[in-house]
Amino acid sequence: MAIQPNRGKFKLSERPVEQYGLKRFSTAEATVILREDGKMREKTLTMDTLNPQVKAVEYAVRGPIVTKAGDIERGLQQGQKHPFTEVIKANIGDSHAMGQKPITFLRQVVALCSFPELLNSPSFPEDAKQRARRILQGCGGQSLGSYSASQGVDCIRQDVAVYIEQRDKGVPADWDNIYLTTGASDGIVSILKMLVSGQGRSRSGVMIPIPQYPLYSAAISELEAVQINYYLDEDNCWALDINELHRAYQAAKEHCHPRVICIINPGNPTGQVQSRKCIEDVLHFAYEENLFVMSDEVYQDNVYSPDLQFHSFKKVLYEMGPEYFNTVELASFHSTSKGYSGECGFRGGYMEVLNLDLEVKAQLVKLLSVRLCPPVSGQAAMDVIVNPPLPHEPSYLQFHKEKSAVLGALAEKAQVTEQTLNTVPGIKCNPVQGAMYAFPRIFIPPRAVEEAKSLGMSPDMMYCLRLLEETGICLVPGSGFGQREGTYHFRMTILPTTEKLKVLLEKLRDFHIKFLKEYASLEEPKR
Amino acid sequence: MAIQPNRGKFKLSERPVEQYGLKRFSTAEATVILREDGKMREKTLTMDTLNPQVKAVEYAVRGPIVTKAGDIERGLQQGQKHPFTEVIKANIGDSHAMGQKPITFLRQVVALCSFPELLNSPSFPEDAKQRARRILQGCGGQSLGSYSASQGVDCIRQDVAVYIEQRDKGVPADWDNIYLTTGASDGIVSILKMLVSGQGRSRSGVMIPIPQYPLYSAAISELEAVQINYYLDEDNCWALDINELHRAYQAAKEHCHPRVICIINPGNPTGQVQSRKCIEDVLHFAYEENLFVMSDEVYQDNVYSPDLQFHSFKKVLYEMGPEYFNTVELASFHSTSKGYSGECGFRGGYMEVLNLDLEVKAQLVKLLSVRLCPPVSGQAAMDVIVNPPLPHEPSYLQFHKEKSAVLGALAEKAQVTEQTLNTVPGIKCNPVQGAMYAFPRIFIPPRAVEEAKSLGMSPDMMYCLRLLEETGICLVPGSGFGQREGTYHFRMTILPTTEKLKVLLEKLRDFHIKFLKEYASLEEPKR
Repeated sequence: MAIQPNRGKFKLSERPVEQYGLKRFSTAEATVILREDGKMREKTLTMDTLNPQVKAVEYAVRGPIVTKAGDIERGLQQGQKHPFTEVIKANIGDSHAMGQKPITFLRQVVALCSFPELLNSPSFPEDAKQRARRILQGCGGQSLGSYSASQGVDCIRQDVAVYIEQRDKGVPADWDNIYLTTGASDGIVSILKMLVSGQGRSRSGVMIPIPQYPLYSAAISELEAVQINYYLDEDNCWALDINELHRAYQAAKEHCHPRVICIINPGNPTGQVQSRKCIEDVLHFAYEENLFVMSDEVYQDNVYSPDLQFHSFKKVLYEMGPEYFNTVELASFHSTSKGYSGECGFRGGYMEVLNLDLEVKAQLVKLLSVRLCPPVSGQAAMDVIVNPPLPHEPSYLQFHKEKSAVLGALAEKAQVTEQTLNTVPGIKCNPVQGAMYAFPRIFIPPRAVEEAKSLGMSPDMMYCLRLLEETGICLVPGSGFGQREGTYHFRMTILPTTEKLKVLLEKLRDFHIKFLKEYASLEEPKR
Repeated sequence: MAIQPNRGKFKLSERPVEQYGLKRFSTAEATVILREDGKMREKTLTMDTLNPQVKAVEYAVRGPIVTKAGDIERGLQQGQKHPFTEVIKANIGDSHAMGQKPITFLRQVVALCSFPELLNSPSFPEDAKQRARRILQGCGGQSLGSYSASQGVDCIRQDVAVYIEQRDKGVPADWDNIYLTTGASDGIVSILKMLVSGQGRSRSGVMIPIPQYPLYSAAISELEAVQINYYLDEDNCWALDINELHRAYQAAKEHCHPRVICIINPGNPTGQVQSRKCIEDVLHFAYEENLFVMSDEVYQDNVYSPDLQFHSFKKVLYEMGPEYFNTVELASFHSTSKGYSGECGFRGGYMEVLNLDLEVKAQLVKLLSVRLCPPVSGQAAMDVIVNPPLPHEPSYLQFHKEKSAVLGALAEKAQVTEQTLNTVPGIKCNPVQGAMYAFPRIFIPPRAVEEAKSLGMSPDMMYCLRLLEETGICLVPGSGFGQREGTYHFRMTILPTTEKLKVLLEKLRDFHIKFLKEYASLEEPKR
């Protein structure tokens, strides 16, 4: 096939490389193969022909900094010299990778489900066996290896509904509204996918908090929806300000059709826990403006401030009365990955939908069917989280001890992180009320900002890159989550062990002071 | 908010139903809520506002027949009377649900990974422990509960590469090209997603076999790509005919940009095993026409005809010489769900890519990162499949026995199915050379065709619905996979136990004969 000039850009000035009898021209734009018959064969899939929606996706939590951290880690293993001996990854909420131990009961149930011969073993407690038997009863051929129904295993969905009713002090939950998912991300993307339609000014707009967890912006890019930013109030512990919602909505109405509002509570990356009043305001706003509400509640067990508590959007909606509870369309999300279990690798999760049109529900099930089912071992893990040992059961004491230890340590680390960061000049950190992250504001001197711009990168990216190179600490720049123009942040997890966290915070302080000094001085930067 | 006439259709003639103090009007088109203040509140997400790409998706394997089968099953449990006592589901390749036992070794490894305390138990064999230790070494914090890298756990990807090299008799495999996936479906959709671009006549066209596995058509609809059908040759054991590829390609070029060819080998739903020559022809064609090749090889272990063998597209490409091996872009897919293990619920799989542009590869990793990682227990299951016990290891004998038993039984059932179906007048079944399905052609009398049309359904759908209602057998109509105009088929799995399969085939024969008689007679149909 001869070159079609409209199918790629070619610069053939580079010297061809002989390989396997073929001449390869590697250019910045495309790789072209000179065939033996003298014709050119270009690649089918290049940056020029790649789906532009894929190209538009950004996902900072596993972005360039993390790739670089991996490179450095491998380098260290191979004996390369760095000013540190270890990379500390505080970029992602991956509890077990940071040393948190699994909840014994959960793993016992999963092992029993995986290898049911163990049901005869005296070394497993009776309550774990009872959970495993019940889950296996719900599986085709009593095997974790069968596909479940597209919505998930029936009895697990029933357990989820019971859990929600108890959590919400009796607000009714119907297991027909429960969908098990492959982590929360899967559910969030599925619901967003349903909601995107229209062209031009009638294209669906999705309101998301800024800063946000970048799954949202990535999914919005991929679906070519319109992202509508509402800014959280950093000066007020990252609270959601209802006036800011109105502002964002009114401004967006000019160029799209706002149809969805996403809320993350407790906040990621911002760690705030929303007040009941604030949730009521949001729901009232959604009711008035006909918005579909998506509430990401994966950190519902991660509340550390003793004077705050988690309120589910669903419970508040119920308390607002039937006019609200029977009309507002709500999808809320939970996960096995966070909380006290931290079982990210199992990819378990659920979503509960409310007031979804019946035909739309059938469409949702159809959409989920194409991927067949969520991983069944993840479903089993979700079941344990919603159906943990009861006080009279043999595993209760150990379970309770393990759970309290994890949540207690997180609360302590949340406080240590906030307090230490606030001792550093040029860093200001809001209280980490919940979730697993601090998102402090950092002062970056104007000369550093200029240097970053001349390097074609955002200032906080330059900051985090230098931090990584000089200390081995891997954080995510605030620009990956969104921040008000001219402000800079990073996200760090509070997951390292207390000991390691203190080392991290110390190194970070030293680095920041050095960084300020370097760029504040009148001399040229020393680098 | 008042009704906006352009945002939904309303028929308010129905009598409102009082509920929780709100008046609800339930109409065919939309549900409208009459608020206390007298204003209307419509739902945000209705069939009118649903993403049209979602609406366009079809997935027959879990379509209306299967929903109906579930209803009947529940009815039977509640004591409803039917002309049968059991629903036999032969609609989906779900081995364990049909009674196949898990491979012991695989489940031992997964249980050990899930609950590592078992590594101290004397009741687990040493080779299973060694596999589990190795997998856990590859996991963050040595826990299945950590996120893996987006591409999957390194050592499992390495094992996959070794497996492929052995399978392909030394053709080199680079683990950098291996991506672990959430079942094969996930990998297939990810690659397709990358390949879709352009508008109008330059929109990406995707060549798929007809009949096909409906994941392909569903993904194409969702991505708004152009589906290009190439028909398999039913009269020639569903062989892929290279002239038909040329025909389909040339015709499609008029209205889209054909960029991808998908092949399923062994075939689903058609069960054919492609010859080496045929694969070479396809690859030559893809080379000439600059097509990206996607080869779905999830049934690579499921070949039953003793005179046939599985050839991977990659191996054939290698044997065609470096001009091909170093240029054709190929992605091939495998899964834990099929083969002899049938571990569908684990959602494990891998894909291998070849000749992917380096920048595109980075984009692929970015895209996968957004969903964080495939389920790690599914990755562990995949590892066992590519790294089974060796002859000198303690688990070898049992493993070998279990594997042979499963594959032997499938081979026998493949033969029984074909032979029995071919004794029925008006049914013609090609040999089930591989995979897990028969896709026989069924004669549907013209009067039955007419009746179906008058009911607004496809004739094979009516056939399968009646079969279900009268016998309890759940199959999928051929129209869900695509078939030549005017021909009718169904897909049935060969997975029920031999005993149950024979009952199924007998009932099917009786039903078919009765069906023919009913619609062939000169009287009016008796229904």
